[in-house]
Amino acid sequence: MPDKTRFLHTPITPFTVDTNLTTEEVLKRMERISFQGRNLGTAHQVWQKMLSDKCLIFLGIAGALSAGGLRLILAHLIRNRYVDCVVSTGANLYHDLHECRGRRHFLGSPQGDDVALQAAHIDRVYDTLVDEDEFIENDEWIADFTRTLHSRPYTSREFLYLLGEHLWNQTGEDGILTAAYQANVPIFCPAIADSSIGMGVSQARHKEKATGQLDVIGDIIESSNLVIHLRRTASVVLGGGTPKNFINQACVQAEFFSAGLEGHAYAVQIVTDVPHFGGASGSTLNEAQSWGKVAADAAHVTVNTDATVALPLIVSALATSTQNVLDVRTFPAFDVSGQVITINGVPVADGRFSGPR
Amino acid sequence: MPDKTRFLHTPITPFTVDTNLTTEEVLKRMERISFQGRNLGTAHQVWQKMLSDKCLIFLGIAGALSAGGLRLILAHLIRNRYVDCVVSTGANLYHDLHECRGRRHFLGSPQGDDVALQAAHIDRVYDTLVDEDEFIENDEWIADFTRTLHSRPYTSREFLYLLGEHLWNQTGEDGILTAAYQANVPIFCPAIADSSIGMGVSQARHKEKATGQLDVIGDIIESSNLVIHLRRTASVVLGGGTPKNFINQACVQAEFFSAGLEGHAYAVQIVTDVPHFGGASGSTLNEAQSWGKVAADAAHVTVNTDATVALPLIVSALATSTQNVLDVRTFPAFDVSGQVITINGVPVADGRFSGPR
Amino acid sequence: MPDKTRFLHTPITPFTVDTNLTTEEVLKRMERISFQGRNLGTAHQVWQKMLSDKCLIFLGIAGALSAGGLRLILAHLIRNRYVDCVVSTGANLYHDLHECRGRRHFLGSPQGDDVALQAAHIDRVYDTLVDEDEFIENDEWIADFTRTLHSRPYTSREFLYLLGEHLWNQTGEDGILTAAYQANVPIFCPAIADSSIGMGVSQARHKEKATGQLDVIGDIIESSNLVIHLRRTASVVLGGGTPKNFINQACVQAEFFSAGLEGHAYAVQIVTDVPHFGGASGSTLNEAQSWGKVAADAAHVTVNTDATVALPLIVSALATSTQNVLDVRTFPAFDVSGQVITINGVPVADGRFSGPR
Amino acid sequence: MPDKTRFLHTPITPFTVDTNLTTEEVLKRMERISFQGRNLGTAHQVWQKMLSDKCLIFLGIAGALSAGGLRLILAHLIRNRYVDCVVSTGANLYHDLHECRGRRHFLGSPQGDDVALQAAHIDRVYDTLVDEDEFIENDEWIADFTRTLHSRPYTSREFLYLLGEHLWNQTGEDGILTAAYQANVPIFCPAIADSSIGMGVSQARHKEKATGQLDVIGDIIESSNLVIHLRRTASVVLGGGTPKNFINQACVQAEFFSAGLEGHAYAVQIVTDVPHFGGASGSTLNEAQSWGKVAADAAHVTVNTDATVALPLIVSALATSTQNVLDVRTFPAFDVSGQVITINGVPVADGRFSGPR
Repeated sequence: MPDKTRFLHTPITPFTVDTNLTTEEVLKRMERISFQGRNLGTAHQVWQKMLSDKCLIFLGIAGALSAGGLRLILAHLIRNRYVDCVVSTGANLYHDLHECRGRRHFLGSPQGDDVALQAAHIDRVYDTLVDEDEFIENDEWIADFTRTLHSRPYTSREFLYLLGEHLWNQTGEDGILTAAYQANVPIFCPAIADSSIGMGVSQARHKEKATGQLDVIGDIIESSNLVIHLRRTASVVLGGGTPKNFINQACVQAEFFSAGLEGHAYAVQIVTDVPHFGGASGSTLNEAQSWGKVAADAAHVTVNTDATVALPLIVSALATSTQNVLDVRTFPAFDVSGQVITINGVPVADGRFSGPR
Repeated sequence: MPDKTRFLHTPITPFTVDTNLTTEEVLKRMERISFQGRNLGTAHQVWQKMLSDKCLIFLGIAGALSAGGLRLILAHLIRNRYVDCVVSTGANLYHDLHECRGRRHFLGSPQGDDVALQAAHIDRVYDTLVDEDEFIENDEWIADFTRTLHSRPYTSREFLYLLGEHLWNQTGEDGILTAAYQANVPIFCPAIADSSIGMGVSQARHKEKATGQLDVIGDIIESSNLVIHLRRTASVVLGGGTPKNFINQACVQAEFFSAGLEGHAYAVQIVTDVPHFGGASGSTLNEAQSWGKVAADAAHVTVNTDATVALPLIVSALATSTQNVLDVRTFPAFDVSGQVITINGVPVADGRFSGPR
Repeated sequence: MPDKTRFLHTPITPFTVDTNLTTEEVLKRMERISFQGRNLGTAHQVWQKMLSDKCLIFLGIAGALSAGGLRLILAHLIRNRYVDCVVSTGANLYHDLHECRGRRHFLGSPQGDDVALQAAHIDRVYDTLVDEDEFIENDEWIADFTRTLHSRPYTSREFLYLLGEHLWNQTGEDGILTAAYQANVPIFCPAIADSSIGMGVSQARHKEKATGQLDVIGDIIESSNLVIHLRRTASVVLGGGTPKNFINQACVQAEFFSAGLEGHAYAVQIVTDVPHFGGASGSTLNEAQSWGKVAADAAHVTVNTDATVALPLIVSALATSTQNVLDVRTFPAFDVSGQVITINGVPVADGRFSGPR
Repeated sequence: MPDKTRFLHTPITPFTVDTNLTTEEVLKRMERISFQGRNLGTAHQVWQKMLSDKCLIFLGIAGALSAGGLRLILAHLIRNRYVDCVVSTGANLYHDLHECRGRRHFLGSPQGDDVALQAAHIDRVYDTLVDEDEFIENDEWIADFTRTLHSRPYTSREFLYLLGEHLWNQTGEDGILTAAYQANVPIFCPAIADSSIGMGVSQARHKEKATGQLDVIGDIIESSNLVIHLRRTASVVLGGGTPKNFINQACVQAEFFSAGLEGHAYAVQIVTDVPHFGGASGSTLNEAQSWGKVAADAAHVTVNTDATVALPLIVSALATSTQNVLDVRTFPAFDVSGQVITINGVPVADGRFSGPR
């Protein structure tokens, strides 16, 4: 019979309860149990490692995380450079803007009477409610802002920087867009046309035909160029969707134009979708290795848990466990305010991939 | 005690087995059982009703449906005008193009050795495999096509029409893009930047800076104008994602510019995602009613089942049950070959919403 | 680079739609697509193979399948010996009995007003409704039957045979219990205490202290002895739960007492639960191989789909594809009417495992 | 338009990150966000309320929680009387016994080579490994213990008390069975025949025909009598399965024999299964209200999260938030060592429901 110790070497340590346990301590203890508890503990551990290494950390944001109460955590991650580049759905940025502008989301019930809600101009997102008339007013605010721009194409990254600047100047409120503006952290929104931000931009176009040109192809080039320049990357993905794929696509595209790249050195994903229906949101990080999106030797972990559970825990733990790490972290200094992004003072190529191909 | 017959009026009819049952008969019998079997039967029924009514039927396509073997079903739906307007992820169109160009997807295993696959330049999508080098060649083919276009913005709808035309001219193969080209059915791809089609376009830009301008904001306006002009709409959504939201967004945006619109009169969604994590993909059609995306009195049903199970069954049943219906169906005649779409010969407004606002 | 044809040898064949497709033809076409569609097609194929081989086929039934409209399919499987031994939750047998007794389940809505339903004495199972007062009357009917038994322990298998006999004599109705009675197919219900059948039995005990002795440990021995005697086994599991584990446990226990057994030669499971939370219901058939529950070389497939979708399809297809197979099938002839089961005329050991250990 | 403030009254408070946050503070902040984060925070809150009220708290345990590293948390809940009565699957008790006996579970990978594991006599539970030969030795240990019992029926509750006593005497180790033995907390295992404990008992029977009589019908009566005597109940369910239903069944059965009972006053369930396939494990607590399992005015919450994530957090928070509460908590004093259970010194009826019916 084969040697069992090849397999049976590290015993599980049952979780023991104490009073006043910090979340850091809870996650440390979880590393040694099973199933998604283990994965949650490991996600904290892998993120710590990323921060100690010199790499570009992507953050993907999908699902109604801002509306759901995570927007200040996300702002915290950006401001303190737990992450270096954000890829988001439009909705998360729009809901963030909504709250920065002094509006709120409300506690509701998943068993709402939706016809009554519609009559009252209230929109529901599972157990969360919002005033539809305030949303209409946001759209117009975005349209008015859009009309102040030049009649030329803007990448979503440049557009969102300017939107964050405008939002900060008007409100001075903490949030995803305003923190990214202040920290010069790029935000890409490749599916911006599929969101209320896109709707607001389209309303500007309605009034003024030459406005509202968003150059999402430019986003592809820019995001790949970040990988080509900085080489070593990591990925933290919340919830799948277009951000998950866009972050991976940046690696794949970069590999095409620059030899020696092999996919993310670290990868954490917190998803509720499952692999067995074949969709990208639920796909495993092992599968990502076949594509070269994640390196063959990467430290990677998938946590099959709602981000509203996992993120408050992991980030609270990181706040404690990585205090010293962040003080000495080497992260890329971007200038994302212009048409062309600069990295540590060096502009990336304008409209073309940086590699020699 | 309250009258029980208020609730207990329609008994379930247990499913009985016979030899040589057609799928139509199976789905008819499923209408009278419970759980997702009932929902599958009801989806067939609701789609039949859409086809008998005079309405614009949207089809949303997300998940790896083309790669997974459903692309000829989707082409069949387009060619025979079971649907009138398609909203798709880029991946589904790219995988369709891959097969039209004579390449294949392959049967594999979900327990693949992904590091070995990467070494062999093979990409995995759950239990499906593809040759990565052929994908690279597709990207270049798309880049070459893109360089033949003018230096002006194209909506994804116009771009995809021209891509379908080029693909048809080169291959003469049946597929989603080619069927839509021939049937003058619009395809929108709002997240085209998050796909290999977008990557191909970006590679054209790399060689020629002025090319590859995709106007996704124009897509918002056009899709809403379809709703404003045609008024009565229906929605069949496979798998959530950006197509699901974009189809609903078209209604919301249209309502903003044109009074009297109230959301889809019919809605079918076939999703595997669940509501309780708050994401849009899993959101219920009841929730959609709060937003005015689905009408308060709409016939609607959600089938929580993989589309690779549900779609072959429903469409095989529809092929039988709706033969006569399709012969007499009144559907909008589009011309989607130009910068401006025309509906039954009338051009929609150029770059602005059609309503008076 | 490694040879790609090692991996890329069998192309996917996209599903093509025709009129009047039988379910058999649909499932045959599904074998060559991806994801759960492929698995559904493969499940049909594996079940066909089981029937052509000489083996004992277990059927596990969990989830509200009887209430949901599948009870006549299950009866059909038993009567026509698509299966040889059933392991069920109590609820499925109870709901079957309810309908045999002329009561019905009703179409309802998953968004029921449950407080109003409770006031009306109506119980809800997702979108299915039932009259609570009729359930109370069933319980008493079971209690009355139980009091006719002797004051000695009965395995659930013997008890359910007698219950089926009584039900048949009283109603002459087709169903799971009555079909199993007539076909002398054993039904085990290891968790009978966790069901309304158990509740009915407990009410008999309330009136007469010595009654209602159910010997569930005897069930373990009997089920293992079936494996020890018949050697080659197969497993079709619907929905996980205690039936899934009990069927596998029979193999594990048999292996302990009889050398040369290696787990099921065929295994099909139709489950909606997922592996990554560590529960037995969602566990994979690969994992089952580590335990020796499923043979290393078994033909096995998991279909992640609701049984109310999958079972009508698969069994309708089998009705067509296996007509000739069933005519010549060699299946074990049981007598399950007594305290000791007999197989092809030979009694198994009484209260002990058959092996020599 | 209806008054919006009817719906929009309580804004969501975005979660803010601090260093050294305790889990209590994290869960308090989660109460005011959305989705499963909110539900997790609310579960902590509802459990706190239960402990401050005078009620009988049931705990249901399903899924591989002991193997997965939660057994000392469960022991902690029993010892400190966060709960008063346990209903468990057999596997959780067996894995607890395995570790009390000095054996371990091990960290593994969900992508195990299961054929190699089988060859090495190692069993896998998702990412957890165990030595199969040690399991066989446990079975024999259980068989030896069983043979020391009298030749009469034992409820699973009495059997498990004696097993816990024996285990404590032999090992002195902390665990679920030993904590329950010491605290005189009843454990019911209605599906004990579907577990390795049942297998061990059956092996005792193999050697000695009159042994191993487990009276699971007696369990139904006893568990209902607890409800009839103590009147006000609460339910904490981890993972569905037979424990979830058995706890609810106790209420339904009690209501049948004793007027004025209306279902659990508090209910918390931590499940990963979903409602829409109709199974009991995923069923909602609203649905449970239609059955009278949960009171119409109950405080109840469902957390759709793996228990290995949720339980360490909630119990760590409770350890802090309920220290004073537990000191003054009024809980029922049981004697569960004999054939008949006593509650606060009063024996419940022997073999019959306590009510007058």
